[in-house]
Amino acid sequence: MVGMKIISGTSNRALAQNIAQKLNLRLVDAEISKFKNGEKRVWIKDNLNGENVVLVQSFSTPADEYIIEFLLIADALERSGARHVNAIIPWMGYSLQDKLFRPGEPMAAKIIADLVSNAYIKRAHLLDLHNTSIPGFFSIPTHHHSSIELFSKYIKKNVDLKKAVVVSPDFGGLKRARSIANELELDLANVDKHRDLTTGKVTPMGISGNVEGKICLIYDDIINTGSTVVEVAKFLKQHKAKEVHFFVTHGIFAQNGLTLMNDESINSVVITNSIHHTQLPEKIIVLDTADTFVQALKTWM
Amino acid sequence: MVGMKIISGTSNRALAQNIAQKLNLRLVDAEISKFKNGEKRVWIKDNLNGENVVLVQSFSTPADEYIIEFLLIADALERSGARHVNAIIPWMGYSLQDKLFRPGEPMAAKIIADLVSNAYIKRAHLLDLHNTSIPGFFSIPTHHHSSIELFSKYIKKNVDLKKAVVVSPDFGGLKRARSIANELELDLANVDKHRDLTTGKVTPMGISGNVEGKICLIYDDIINTGSTVVEVAKFLKQHKAKEVHFFVTHGIFAQNGLTLMNDESINSVVITNSIHHTQLPEKIIVLDTADTFVQALKTWM
Amino acid sequence: MVGMKIISGTSNRALAQNIAQKLNLRLVDAEISKFKNGEKRVWIKDNLNGENVVLVQSFSTPADEYIIEFLLIADALERSGARHVNAIIPWMGYSLQDKLFRPGEPMAAKIIADLVSNAYIKRAHLLDLHNTSIPGFFSIPTHHHSSIELFSKYIKKNVDLKKAVVVSPDFGGLKRARSIANELELDLANVDKHRDLTTGKVTPMGISGNVEGKICLIYDDIINTGSTVVEVAKFLKQHKAKEVHFFVTHGIFAQNGLTLMNDESINSVVITNSIHHTQLPEKIIVLDTADTFVQALKTWM
Amino acid sequence: MVGMKIISGTSNRALAQNIAQKLNLRLVDAEISKFKNGEKRVWIKDNLNGENVVLVQSFSTPADEYIIEFLLIADALERSGARHVNAIIPWMGYSLQDKLFRPGEPMAAKIIADLVSNAYIKRAHLLDLHNTSIPGFFSIPTHHHSSIELFSKYIKKNVDLKKAVVVSPDFGGLKRARSIANELELDLANVDKHRDLTTGKVTPMGISGNVEGKICLIYDDIINTGSTVVEVAKFLKQHKAKEVHFFVTHGIFAQNGLTLMNDESINSVVITNSIHHTQLPEKIIVLDTADTFVQALKTWM
Amino acid sequence: MVGMKIISGTSNRALAQNIAQKLNLRLVDAEISKFKNGEKRVWIKDNLNGENVVLVQSFSTPADEYIIEFLLIADALERSGARHVNAIIPWMGYSLQDKLFRPGEPMAAKIIADLVSNAYIKRAHLLDLHNTSIPGFFSIPTHHHSSIELFSKYIKKNVDLKKAVVVSPDFGGLKRARSIANELELDLANVDKHRDLTTGKVTPMGISGNVEGKICLIYDDIINTGSTVVEVAKFLKQHKAKEVHFFVTHGIFAQNGLTLMNDESINSVVITNSIHHTQLPEKIIVLDTADTFVQALKTWM
Amino acid sequence: MVGMKIISGTSNRALAQNIAQKLNLRLVDAEISKFKNGEKRVWIKDNLNGENVVLVQSFSTPADEYIIEFLLIADALERSGARHVNAIIPWMGYSLQDKLFRPGEPMAAKIIADLVSNAYIKRAHLLDLHNTSIPGFFSIPTHHHSSIELFSKYIKKNVDLKKAVVVSPDFGGLKRARSIANELELDLANVDKHRDLTTGKVTPMGISGNVEGKICLIYDDIINTGSTVVEVAKFLKQHKAKEVHFFVTHGIFAQNGLTLMNDESINSVVITNSIHHTQLPEKIIVLDTADTFVQALKTWM
Repeated sequence: MVGMKIISGTSNRALAQNIAQKLNLRLVDAEISKFKNGEKRVWIKDNLNGENVVLVQSFSTPADEYIIEFLLIADALERSGARHVNAIIPWMGYSLQDKLFRPGEPMAAKIIADLVSNAYIKRAHLLDLHNTSIPGFFSIPTHHHSSIELFSKYIKKNVDLKKAVVVSPDFGGLKRARSIANELELDLANVDKHRDLTTGKVTPMGISGNVEGKICLIYDDIINTGSTVVEVAKFLKQHKAKEVHFFVTHGIFAQNGLTLMNDESINSVVITNSIHHTQLPEKIIVLDTADTFVQALKTWM
Repeated sequence: MVGMKIISGTSNRALAQNIAQKLNLRLVDAEISKFKNGEKRVWIKDNLNGENVVLVQSFSTPADEYIIEFLLIADALERSGARHVNAIIPWMGYSLQDKLFRPGEPMAAKIIADLVSNAYIKRAHLLDLHNTSIPGFFSIPTHHHSSIELFSKYIKKNVDLKKAVVVSPDFGGLKRARSIANELELDLANVDKHRDLTTGKVTPMGISGNVEGKICLIYDDIINTGSTVVEVAKFLKQHKAKEVHFFVTHGIFAQNGLTLMNDESINSVVITNSIHHTQLPEKIIVLDTADTFVQALKTWM
Repeated sequence: MVGMKIISGTSNRALAQNIAQKLNLRLVDAEISKFKNGEKRVWIKDNLNGENVVLVQSFSTPADEYIIEFLLIADALERSGARHVNAIIPWMGYSLQDKLFRPGEPMAAKIIADLVSNAYIKRAHLLDLHNTSIPGFFSIPTHHHSSIELFSKYIKKNVDLKKAVVVSPDFGGLKRARSIANELELDLANVDKHRDLTTGKVTPMGISGNVEGKICLIYDDIINTGSTVVEVAKFLKQHKAKEVHFFVTHGIFAQNGLTLMNDESINSVVITNSIHHTQLPEKIIVLDTADTFVQALKTWM
Repeated sequence: MVGMKIISGTSNRALAQNIAQKLNLRLVDAEISKFKNGEKRVWIKDNLNGENVVLVQSFSTPADEYIIEFLLIADALERSGARHVNAIIPWMGYSLQDKLFRPGEPMAAKIIADLVSNAYIKRAHLLDLHNTSIPGFFSIPTHHHSSIELFSKYIKKNVDLKKAVVVSPDFGGLKRARSIANELELDLANVDKHRDLTTGKVTPMGISGNVEGKICLIYDDIINTGSTVVEVAKFLKQHKAKEVHFFVTHGIFAQNGLTLMNDESINSVVITNSIHHTQLPEKIIVLDTADTFVQALKTWM
Repeated sequence: MVGMKIISGTSNRALAQNIAQKLNLRLVDAEISKFKNGEKRVWIKDNLNGENVVLVQSFSTPADEYIIEFLLIADALERSGARHVNAIIPWMGYSLQDKLFRPGEPMAAKIIADLVSNAYIKRAHLLDLHNTSIPGFFSIPTHHHSSIELFSKYIKKNVDLKKAVVVSPDFGGLKRARSIANELELDLANVDKHRDLTTGKVTPMGISGNVEGKICLIYDDIINTGSTVVEVAKFLKQHKAKEVHFFVTHGIFAQNGLTLMNDESINSVVITNSIHHTQLPEKIIVLDTADTFVQALKTWM
Repeated sequence: MVGMKIISGTSNRALAQNIAQKLNLRLVDAEISKFKNGEKRVWIKDNLNGENVVLVQSFSTPADEYIIEFLLIADALERSGARHVNAIIPWMGYSLQDKLFRPGEPMAAKIIADLVSNAYIKRAHLLDLHNTSIPGFFSIPTHHHSSIELFSKYIKKNVDLKKAVVVSPDFGGLKRARSIANELELDLANVDKHRDLTTGKVTPMGISGNVEGKICLIYDDIINTGSTVVEVAKFLKQHKAKEVHFFVTHGIFAQNGLTLMNDESINSVVITNSIHHTQLPEKIIVLDTADTFVQALKTWM
């Protein structure tokens, strides 16, 4: 009978390891290094002839390297006789470039989707995309997984729900905020924003709903540079919030993003391991998404 | 009537500039930068609707970045209404990974060829590939250009041909050496090598033909780390060669390759601008390949 | 020399006629009818061998028929020897089904994009898509045209700008509202909405900016059933707006949508001819988008 | 182990039901409706991850709607994780437009074949196509099923074979007539036709073979408008046929086709359920093709 | 300005020559030979960069060799920089295998159509296909040319029309016969055939229309083995036809087909040069189809 | 459960038979013949619905016929419902035309690879290709098998290893020679060649290593015309080699190649059955490659 094997690129080996472990597998033995001229070199040492394989790779920074590495591994899998390859791409780099903001731009997310679609991949597993139309960029089937259960399970275990309220940082986030509020049976508050009609600049102005003395829970998909996070946390503390906790799928922390998280207004930032970080401040807690992917994979074993 | 426009990636803007100049064009105005999270950002500012466009990009180090950048530009060109896009890829990174050396490896050169073939490119212009079967990896038509005329023209102008001899550094290079020897109507010498039957190691052992007191001209396609270059030069000098000059299309100079060129046995290294270097030792002379490409492009104007 | 021909499906012959006229062309002679069993029948009578052709078709109701008809015409064009076919799809039916709202749904907009992409079409011209990521669903290049200039030109000519203000009906429309406000150098107002935290229902609650005694201009992309339009108009009139005018690209008016427009709170509804209507109330003014498309086409003649 | 699921479009749910029943399955739970603007809406409620699925849809009137609906369902199946999708298309609308009758026409049957081929379908099951070259229009494998066994089984059970003769209505149908005559070991008669050399009009003129006092059995693939059926029946009755029975796979009955069947010269019309009719005159008997398809599907379970 | 070049395979160089001559061109200089191991070898010597090229090749016997040769030439054209390649395939070998006569057979005509469609060919020009659905097997556009004008022009010039009658050899050919009868304003006769209801064998039995003392003209698409031709000629002579002339597009003359033509009942056989024969009996006249193709090509120059 | 079936083309039925036998299977019943006009005709008589099938065909002389036959069989398999088709192509005709030796040539090996890749083949099994980059010409996965174990096993059994030495006929073959020398733990000798610097002609000149009184084993991939084989054997015998044995995968023996093998300097030529020969001189021994392929196939059963 055909089995299943897990292979990892170099971007997020820890997650791949977790997935393998939950399936009682060890990772496929592969050597991924660089030639002297800087080109990636891939060598799969296990025999994969006739096997179903799952390839795990985040397109995190340096995204271009991890993408090309992904394509090299997929090609090696095909040549090694792998039967079907499922790809788990927990963070899809370039997914924020999902439209033409100005004429003359590329649609970068579409290009990356095409690369994956053309790469002997049977199905791509994606997580909490910022734009839910992106699966339409692929020409292979995709699974768009959600981490909402992961976060709500964590919250139920770690937060005193009687004192908590879900806060949406802006109108755009209300739908997402309501979804987790419903899961947790919590009240919802919204940061009202003022938009200067001349400059277009948006600033928080008031709050609908009650946050005073409350544990504020904010649920979002991405922390990019982290500056908005700090701003919202400060604003809520000014309005007498007791604690402010963020629950965010993808922790990019571009540039000095990690340093910003040290701001005392922020009580904790709970992210997932969609993007691997070697070292993180204690305040940042990482949830493991392995279970989310394993459930979908199990159908195939 | 449809015209022609030249656009450059960031890998080799100097070459693109030269090509444009020879066609009396200015480069297309484009902004190529990076987002804060490190992802490439491309913005073409000129109107290219209905134009034939030539995209110039070397897949030199960092190859992965320049490849993805290439794909982003090609996509932007397509969306901007460009009619036909010709790609000039003077150095095709990953082209040395042209076969499976061991089971379990990818065929990296094939992957890169596929990326280019799927990228709204009408025709790819390549230069002095190490393996002449690589055009068969593409599913779009390719032009495989040679720099032999460029080098022979240079030699005729700069070398005292009466004192010169073409030297092949090994049997593998004899065919290439003979081609330029014929062009220049010069004698040919060969470095005979001894191959230890136990270890398989190859060392220069003798020379067929006369190099004593001669200006030795060596013609090759690639300098990778440069260690073979030094070894050959030293050997020829030991055999009383007067001068040793290298003529090599692609100057990669991986790791400390440039430093190696300082060895006094080497009189000069003439390379092309297929790969851009910001600073080079005086001993390294760079020939411009613009003319090579311009001739093919002219048919289309 | 290659010329250009305009051919029309049966969904919007009036627009095709206008485009042809502006290019001093007559429409291609074609017979589009139905067989007795209800199947569409297409017959192009003009000789199109070697010609560049523009195919105009809205995917308006009945969308399925117009889509299949579009594919039949495109195939006939290919077989008739047409050189390049540009498609103008002023309203892309199914474009609102642009994501999976629930697991188990199709991504309908992607399917339609695939049909067009596989149909011997060189380039698709689209207009004011609700979701600007949709061009990423196509595998052929698209032009995404905007009708903003059309509307602002109309307003400048027909509205007393000194008394006018641009109103955004909600936060989601602010970006679009600001763009036309900038074009017209007008002030901007916003209908503030209250969102009931329990039911999720949204109702207009107040207005930022001044509308009293003003001519209110509202700019949007789609009128579907028209109920929101009436609600906003009534609300502005309650807040003493002098006049309320809507400027909307695609007038679908599903079900009894046209009847709703009779409400006295609405002073006028200016739409484009992206969707053809045989008869419209006097209050609904139709702008011709022919010029928008003709400008892009002219590059190719 | 992978199982099999049957899903039905809205064109022929009865047939899908029969197929499912014979496999001891229930139909996949799916909601297929329309949005207010008339666009089709598909929602599959069952979990199909990893399942082999059979999609049943006739491209009967309104063909365009059923075709687009088919594509929407196929896309939803792919996104829902279905492993392989087999399509059963018992009546392939547009299959009569199988060539260019005049220059300037599309090859409609080819277009429909392309739509199906590009729609994540592994294999298409077709029934008694009028033109046996049509499978060559598909780029996926097809199974071309025949209903001849279904009809001959019915005849053996319901007709007194001693009194019966198979009649071919014209030379074109002789091959088909002979095939069923052989199955039933019956004599064969042919309606000879006179072709006016000036007008080209064809009229029945005589009969080769004996029909007097006989039960005439006519086997054909399609009843379109039904006018030929009536004409042949009348002619045979004038030649003293005792009974006239038609056995036809696809009963389209375009326009007033069903009314025509009331003509007293016709004793019965036996069709299949390739096309669904809600109500039929008593004289029209419908045979179930479910078994025909189930046999092929069983190999995959 | 882009010009046009004609290149010929080895199957029908004479036709290619004629086409070139009518366009005032010489054939492209190319060497087509065989390697010692029997593999075809192609070498195009002219510079075709940027040119529109027309490739002429019949898929006549040995069809497999001419097909592979065709693919080799097409590939060489692409690599040589040809812009667009039009293929003229005057006789499409394998086109008679246009359906599955029995389960387990391939659809050979479809395969050949796929080979041509995938071979860098812009448009295929075909002539008098036996099955008019075959263009639906191609995924590139095709032109289906007719030789009817060629034949009718010849007849007008060489036959005393007052004494002539068009004869259809069977009902299947009536449509074709009528088309040329209309062109020539001639009467039409038909060979009535008897079909033995037991054996299925068909034999000529009588004639509708008058052939006595007439010059009989028979128009068909293919002479395969030629046995039917002889049989029809004999039958017409038995019915006192004065002369019997055949007008047939494709003269295959498989096996001893040419010998059969010597039968004295046949007065002449007029074929086209769609298939090249080095030597033919005097009685067989060959018409040149070059003009038929040149007219379509002229649009592109 | 899905089984496996072996089907053979007409080029190498003996090998197919061997493969089937080792798997305890009989060959699929199929009729492969020719029509009267010389076109190939294929008819598969067994029911293959849902089966995994292995298609065995060498592209040996006449290569064009065997290639087209291969495509016909593959199409018939697809239409017959075969699930996955693995192709075994033990000798890939045209594989020596693997680059452009001159501008204006096709890349024939790439074309053949494309034909196979587009032919409903899941995976192609190839053997000892002359150029190891050729798998990059395919767009389907390939297995590149080696016959080295087959030869070394034979040698171990049939040659007195104490007296044997592996000889490389030139520098180009050293790598291959060393690989088998390592397998057999034998010494290695090399025929040194002199290359005339004026004419470029290569002649054997001396030998590195000891061959005197030795059994010389030469391992190569192809015997084409066989002239080099004779030359090397003679040279070794002149240098007092006791015996000279060749071990070559593909025995083409073009033109009078078989006659050349009679030369008394050659003791034996051991080839494989990659290419079928009906009759061979006694001196030529044929090894069966069936096991090599069976091992890879077994994973799939």
